[in-house]
Amino acid sequence: MSSVEKDELAESGDTGIVGPPDSIRQLPRFAGPSTFARLPRLDEVSRADVAIFGVPFDAGTTYRPGARFGPEAIRAGSKLLRPYHLGLEIEPWSRLQIADAGDVGVTPFDIAEAVSQIESAAQRLYRSADRIITLGGDHTVALPMLRAAHRHHGPVALIHFDAHLDTWDNMFGARLTHGTPFRRATEERLLAVNHCAHVGIRHTTPAAKDLEDDRELGFATISTLDVARRGIEHAADRLRERVADRPVYISIDIDVLDPAHAPATGTPEPGGLSTRELQLLLYSLADLDIVGADVVEVSPAYDHAQITALAAAGLTFDLLAMVARGR
Amino acid sequence: MSSVEKDELAESGDTGIVGPPDSIRQLPRFAGPSTFARLPRLDEVSRADVAIFGVPFDAGTTYRPGARFGPEAIRAGSKLLRPYHLGLEIEPWSRLQIADAGDVGVTPFDIAEAVSQIESAAQRLYRSADRIITLGGDHTVALPMLRAAHRHHGPVALIHFDAHLDTWDNMFGARLTHGTPFRRATEERLLAVNHCAHVGIRHTTPAAKDLEDDRELGFATISTLDVARRGIEHAADRLRERVADRPVYISIDIDVLDPAHAPATGTPEPGGLSTRELQLLLYSLADLDIVGADVVEVSPAYDHAQITALAAAGLTFDLLAMVARGR
Amino acid sequence: MSSVEKDELAESGDTGIVGPPDSIRQLPRFAGPSTFARLPRLDEVSRADVAIFGVPFDAGTTYRPGARFGPEAIRAGSKLLRPYHLGLEIEPWSRLQIADAGDVGVTPFDIAEAVSQIESAAQRLYRSADRIITLGGDHTVALPMLRAAHRHHGPVALIHFDAHLDTWDNMFGARLTHGTPFRRATEERLLAVNHCAHVGIRHTTPAAKDLEDDRELGFATISTLDVARRGIEHAADRLRERVADRPVYISIDIDVLDPAHAPATGTPEPGGLSTRELQLLLYSLADLDIVGADVVEVSPAYDHAQITALAAAGLTFDLLAMVARGR
Amino acid sequence: MSSVEKDELAESGDTGIVGPPDSIRQLPRFAGPSTFARLPRLDEVSRADVAIFGVPFDAGTTYRPGARFGPEAIRAGSKLLRPYHLGLEIEPWSRLQIADAGDVGVTPFDIAEAVSQIESAAQRLYRSADRIITLGGDHTVALPMLRAAHRHHGPVALIHFDAHLDTWDNMFGARLTHGTPFRRATEERLLAVNHCAHVGIRHTTPAAKDLEDDRELGFATISTLDVARRGIEHAADRLRERVADRPVYISIDIDVLDPAHAPATGTPEPGGLSTRELQLLLYSLADLDIVGADVVEVSPAYDHAQITALAAAGLTFDLLAMVARGR
Amino acid sequence: MSSVEKDELAESGDTGIVGPPDSIRQLPRFAGPSTFARLPRLDEVSRADVAIFGVPFDAGTTYRPGARFGPEAIRAGSKLLRPYHLGLEIEPWSRLQIADAGDVGVTPFDIAEAVSQIESAAQRLYRSADRIITLGGDHTVALPMLRAAHRHHGPVALIHFDAHLDTWDNMFGARLTHGTPFRRATEERLLAVNHCAHVGIRHTTPAAKDLEDDRELGFATISTLDVARRGIEHAADRLRERVADRPVYISIDIDVLDPAHAPATGTPEPGGLSTRELQLLLYSLADLDIVGADVVEVSPAYDHAQITALAAAGLTFDLLAMVARGR
Amino acid sequence: MSSVEKDELAESGDTGIVGPPDSIRQLPRFAGPSTFARLPRLDEVSRADVAIFGVPFDAGTTYRPGARFGPEAIRAGSKLLRPYHLGLEIEPWSRLQIADAGDVGVTPFDIAEAVSQIESAAQRLYRSADRIITLGGDHTVALPMLRAAHRHHGPVALIHFDAHLDTWDNMFGARLTHGTPFRRATEERLLAVNHCAHVGIRHTTPAAKDLEDDRELGFATISTLDVARRGIEHAADRLRERVADRPVYISIDIDVLDPAHAPATGTPEPGGLSTRELQLLLYSLADLDIVGADVVEVSPAYDHAQITALAAAGLTFDLLAMVARGR
Repeated sequence: MSSVEKDELAESGDTGIVGPPDSIRQLPRFAGPSTFARLPRLDEVSRADVAIFGVPFDAGTTYRPGARFGPEAIRAGSKLLRPYHLGLEIEPWSRLQIADAGDVGVTPFDIAEAVSQIESAAQRLYRSADRIITLGGDHTVALPMLRAAHRHHGPVALIHFDAHLDTWDNMFGARLTHGTPFRRATEERLLAVNHCAHVGIRHTTPAAKDLEDDRELGFATISTLDVARRGIEHAADRLRERVADRPVYISIDIDVLDPAHAPATGTPEPGGLSTRELQLLLYSLADLDIVGADVVEVSPAYDHAQITALAAAGLTFDLLAMVARGR
Repeated sequence: MSSVEKDELAESGDTGIVGPPDSIRQLPRFAGPSTFARLPRLDEVSRADVAIFGVPFDAGTTYRPGARFGPEAIRAGSKLLRPYHLGLEIEPWSRLQIADAGDVGVTPFDIAEAVSQIESAAQRLYRSADRIITLGGDHTVALPMLRAAHRHHGPVALIHFDAHLDTWDNMFGARLTHGTPFRRATEERLLAVNHCAHVGIRHTTPAAKDLEDDRELGFATISTLDVARRGIEHAADRLRERVADRPVYISIDIDVLDPAHAPATGTPEPGGLSTRELQLLLYSLADLDIVGADVVEVSPAYDHAQITALAAAGLTFDLLAMVARGR
Repeated sequence: MSSVEKDELAESGDTGIVGPPDSIRQLPRFAGPSTFARLPRLDEVSRADVAIFGVPFDAGTTYRPGARFGPEAIRAGSKLLRPYHLGLEIEPWSRLQIADAGDVGVTPFDIAEAVSQIESAAQRLYRSADRIITLGGDHTVALPMLRAAHRHHGPVALIHFDAHLDTWDNMFGARLTHGTPFRRATEERLLAVNHCAHVGIRHTTPAAKDLEDDRELGFATISTLDVARRGIEHAADRLRERVADRPVYISIDIDVLDPAHAPATGTPEPGGLSTRELQLLLYSLADLDIVGADVVEVSPAYDHAQITALAAAGLTFDLLAMVARGR
Repeated sequence: MSSVEKDELAESGDTGIVGPPDSIRQLPRFAGPSTFARLPRLDEVSRADVAIFGVPFDAGTTYRPGARFGPEAIRAGSKLLRPYHLGLEIEPWSRLQIADAGDVGVTPFDIAEAVSQIESAAQRLYRSADRIITLGGDHTVALPMLRAAHRHHGPVALIHFDAHLDTWDNMFGARLTHGTPFRRATEERLLAVNHCAHVGIRHTTPAAKDLEDDRELGFATISTLDVARRGIEHAADRLRERVADRPVYISIDIDVLDPAHAPATGTPEPGGLSTRELQLLLYSLADLDIVGADVVEVSPAYDHAQITALAAAGLTFDLLAMVARGR
Repeated sequence: MSSVEKDELAESGDTGIVGPPDSIRQLPRFAGPSTFARLPRLDEVSRADVAIFGVPFDAGTTYRPGARFGPEAIRAGSKLLRPYHLGLEIEPWSRLQIADAGDVGVTPFDIAEAVSQIESAAQRLYRSADRIITLGGDHTVALPMLRAAHRHHGPVALIHFDAHLDTWDNMFGARLTHGTPFRRATEERLLAVNHCAHVGIRHTTPAAKDLEDDRELGFATISTLDVARRGIEHAADRLRERVADRPVYISIDIDVLDPAHAPATGTPEPGGLSTRELQLLLYSLADLDIVGADVVEVSPAYDHAQITALAAAGLTFDLLAMVARGR
Repeated sequence: MSSVEKDELAESGDTGIVGPPDSIRQLPRFAGPSTFARLPRLDEVSRADVAIFGVPFDAGTTYRPGARFGPEAIRAGSKLLRPYHLGLEIEPWSRLQIADAGDVGVTPFDIAEAVSQIESAAQRLYRSADRIITLGGDHTVALPMLRAAHRHHGPVALIHFDAHLDTWDNMFGARLTHGTPFRRATEERLLAVNHCAHVGIRHTTPAAKDLEDDRELGFATISTLDVARRGIEHAADRLRERVADRPVYISIDIDVLDPAHAPATGTPEPGGLSTRELQLLLYSLADLDIVGADVVEVSPAYDHAQITALAAAGLTFDLLAMVARGR
């Protein structure tokens, strides 16, 4: 929501890029627009290098619902973000025009229809934005976003941070759920086969066979035990090797983090990554060519003191800095 | 924050009034703009009958701070509001152009400077809006809003819902705090003397003399015990008599409600009104000429399941319906 | 879940009725089976006068989801229930064999399929139970339960406690949602036309026309303002007159209570009934011939200290006592 | 805990009575001593008209424990109390020397030993204080406090606010629990037979016979349904008649309030009094000769935004004002 | 609680082992029985390799009580557990018949009596189960469980995960408390002297002498600082060496985890293990001969988003997988 | 608050040092004085080696306020502290007379006046205490405490644990805020130039230039990424080298911890230290000559199960043990 005062959005004379209001001189962080990081709305800047896109949808959830409130929560958690990224040494919004494209309006009552609505909206959004970072919503939303990304960028490598594989065939006979997007994406040839990996898999899964099936679909898996035993850099090396020079889509299911770091999610699993571990891993991947990304499964009814929302917003900012670095 | 899709704001062909998106066909209530009730931003409609105005300021607080997050919380709590008001039998936003003017940017570090910034912003806001309903913020913000209202409407009658008198002279020597706005307003002749009343006063106060001082300033007091013993209608009669035909400013400190109904406030007092009692009382005052109003002292860090925010948003909608009825 | 120790379920020598374990001599209330009020499971008693039936389904929800965890929460909240009902002066489980039939397993991904699964399960359940009290789940579940009730009892009068009418035609084109069950029930002639009433309607609705449409469907409406202004007994008289001597189905959407009393619900509305008001109203209806009932829309992720779950469990016990009294 | 600054306790020149620090000029309410209402410690004033006495004990609890943290929570909730009582029009601490006697140290592991320790400490406390107001702790603590009160004042009338009778004979064979204090007190002839009453009894009890047994012990019962149907004043009349001119002990189990008003308690029951109703009832009893009182069963782990603690602290202040008025 | 539908428990044709219902095709995880991981009740399978046993008892607690609700909370937290254990590469419930034996009914009012009741119930339970995994309850319950284990398995090695030594002699003169079970167990020769170890000891203890006393009783200690400085594998080596080939009992006080990972416990200490560290350590001990185990001190009133319950349930599953691996 | 019983404070015959009551024999930890760790008040011992000093002030906060309740929360969180420090192998309160000096009373309405009041009170406090450990309050309070420390100890080295630099020049023109104390301290020559360091800096900052400016002021920076990549001991070495043999002031902004470990703070940043990492780092600095310290920015309205308060209290105890070791 815009503020009374005019000219709060800082427009840089040199680049024409429009950024957020100055929080130290003009508008305290607890005031002003509720866009991501108080960035301009897409309709204010007409065209963006990266668009932030809210997909408030959670009908594909198997356990705790509520990710429909994820975009609102992540935006609220993004108010503390400041311009300069200390880890990657870059100011994303002086390099890129980043804008908030708002939320897509989709039905909560029919998954197939919603997936189609999301895909259409994403297609339209690509007309005014080169890259999209999606704020979920449950993991179902990765499928239509991958479809749209595929149209623009062709088959993409996938780095998928999650406690779960999400390559099951169906759940209760439903083929579009938050546990199946990457099976569908593989079937639809949206992904660069053998250039995809899961990171953060852990604890329990329905059957040993799940891992085999997943491998046959072309995924590599780095479990949290692997990360704990061999270290972050080893994982980063494997991921870079896996992706090679392909354009890459990064999908972050917030449950890749330990419940201590991200309590507000639908299917939490003990023993996850710490936020810092995930950030270190991302920073080691900063030279990849990221063409799309999502941060999903934030279910704020289960949050406390916004810790999940702060982590999700911080990771979204990390993705923006990675994109800025990658260019 | 606006949404990707165009033409979501329903513009009525007949009146030219722009309202919120349709939540049953287009955009679920958990999606879309974060303006109050998802109404248009003031900059989208250029001129409004009533502007909703966020004042995220709480440096005048004596006990629990946090009302700086009040405007954000009340807006988030307003998403369930539907167009037709059942109690007053009216659709506020098909009668009035209502728009959200966003938040004023004020310093949190200097009360006098902040009060001046709020007053200036309100003055500017009156250029594009006839009436302002303010979302606080602590009760300090009533003073600059009354100053601005006074410039436009002259001395106003005041109906002040609160557990406390807020007519103390100073606190720790400070004359601008959330406990002093109506003493200052009286001294500055912003109020119509003897046409002002407090409703909801209860439990404890620093001294018996407070009541005498307050009476000498021209205030009448209706305590919660009065309401409990004599009923809502008796209170409404006294208030209507008190206000007479004066233009009236309504100030709702959310602590007028019992902590069971509004836990998220700075100085909660047991034994308050229920939300329904306050609503019944307001509905009995719907024929008054309301020229300004505020809903203050919502401190969301202390809220649970948004119950305080829902009450505050609901009361704001009640005020809008009263304004619509009063015209 | 049953306990290690045998013979904990008190079987009365006289009646053969099996009740809960003795909490003062055998098994503290915080231990033992997690059935409703620690009553026997239906498979332990083979046949019941009243079955408690969990329907963990919330895909029909428009705002806050989570009622899928409602049955678990209400059962957890029922542990403090003791045998003798002080308000109605009766011991339900020495008069009636009451048993917990567990949860129906339904898909969360397809509303139509789920509604059909619930209906089938209810049909099967009627083979071993005369009456069913359903623990929701969102309000969508009232439709299949009314279908099953209709097969057993013919058209029923309906007393519907709710903040909302729930007689809309569709939402986002979907005809099976938590906002439409009673429109469908009317169309399917499950209800005794002109013998139905809503109680607790309040605050806002999409359009004035909603009330007219609803009236044409044959519903009477008692708003919370009516209750506040004319009293509980007046409401009870109107309801008894409305129902006449018809068999009656009672549907309690927990949002009929004020958010202070029931924060944990999907579409809370300020200004609702207190738990005690609702109980007084129910007790005045104790002589009705109740053939089915539900308690729905408890979304425990939003609860605090179980206050919503305690209210819902208490109201379920009130319904049981009413059934016991009605016989 | 005392503060750095000297002479913060306001000592009145006229009376020699020492009160709390001035919160408007000296020490904000969120600072300073953590005694009840920041009153002086008993060791600072040597002798008191009324002593506030913490009994952090909860081993007698049947359901949710945690009342051992009750005294700490009630004291924290008392910081907002100001000197003048608006309902009873009196300043308790300019009329009476009130002091905080701190907590008694008792074993949590042996109920009988703890009851004996509490009784001894209370006996010692009576040497320096005329009246004691006890902050529980679970309701077990009423027994040793009544024993001590009896030694000083002889048999007392009892007004017992509670959802439950607390006159059971034993629980799991234990005769000292939070459900049995008034049975023991009757057996020990601590109470003035037929001058005792319960207020707030509701919803469920183990057996119809409980009420008969209780009546035979000499108690009258005013249920919440009685209060709702006949009004506060009717209840007050019955209580005054019951007590007659006897010295009276007031025992407030916080669960007499509805869970909306007092979620943080061990055995919450829906349908209770509102805080305001209880206060109105107390104010109608202000002319009684109160010789002792307790506020028990506050279990702060279940509290939210301190609403239970605020109510309990407020009621303690109401008791102090009643004592001040009674003299 | 069982569900309406029959044949939900998957009985394997080959082994006759009965496991939980299928959560992907039949019964969503948020529905159905509230046994641990929705496993069969012991009375449904008559005999088990491992029984899960609830001991809802917390009268031995020195600080925050509430572990009486631990079994209920851990079972609720176990619903997300899937059959295949990724870390240990095994499906516990296709290898072992695991069943939930429910809760033992014990008095909350007398520790000695309760300890005796727990011991008796455990003895009876051993008739139908080879191994018992206990869900506490406070740590007092380890004593009767060790007594029963000793009868079946003779003196056992002990690996005790905890922030505290729990080998004190008495507290307030009481010899049976949650701080003393392993002193009693040593005195009663239940443990294999010099084959016992504490893991996770940290921060503060009453006296330096505690460590000496503990050493003299035959315990080794691995502090969290040791784990942090020397690593998980070093700790695992020391533990394996310590236990040698003895049958081992594993006792997990959930406060071994950092409060960030397990806030809901009675005596939390900063600086603990992460859940993942504890899991890694356990997995390195998977070849031990585990004859009994407990997971204690979960006090759910202090939990948030079930993170403690999820960790405790996950660790219980880890213990089951270890037992399955060990066979 | 002191307790009824006399002689609870254990006075050692040998040293005359007065410590807390015995929590295993006399006064359970949930009872008794609310001083830090239930230590004596300063007025009870007349003179102290170390004074604990509460500064309940938060008007300098830029985002979430509420640190005014920090001292109360940290004291409540300190009740579990036991005498012997396992990491540093010392009993602080048998070596040092430590006492709680209570809270300073300062205005919440004027930052400059408050800073002056804090400074004066600290000056007075130094008359009866050699060292002061301050419980904040927001980080603004470090400035007056450094002024007072400077008067006693001359320029001090500073080890500053924080997510943020806190060396900005001003915010909204205000030069005294929680983001500026160390800029002011440098300008006022309170610090030993080039002997100061920040630890824990991370994620985002307004501008790259902030780091340069900070370096020019004489600060070194160890980021959380540095700690993660090079280890605790490397950081400790750099800090010891930096401080050399100077007297050192340690300032711990609790936001140096990850939000999982310290949710209750004003400007949380993902990716912080774990409590154990910070403790390990502190223990490696135990031989420094600590002349003053603070623990600030605990904002308890955002806490859960006291985890932030427990960490802050634990760190305060760590500081006390370091002082005891350093002597």
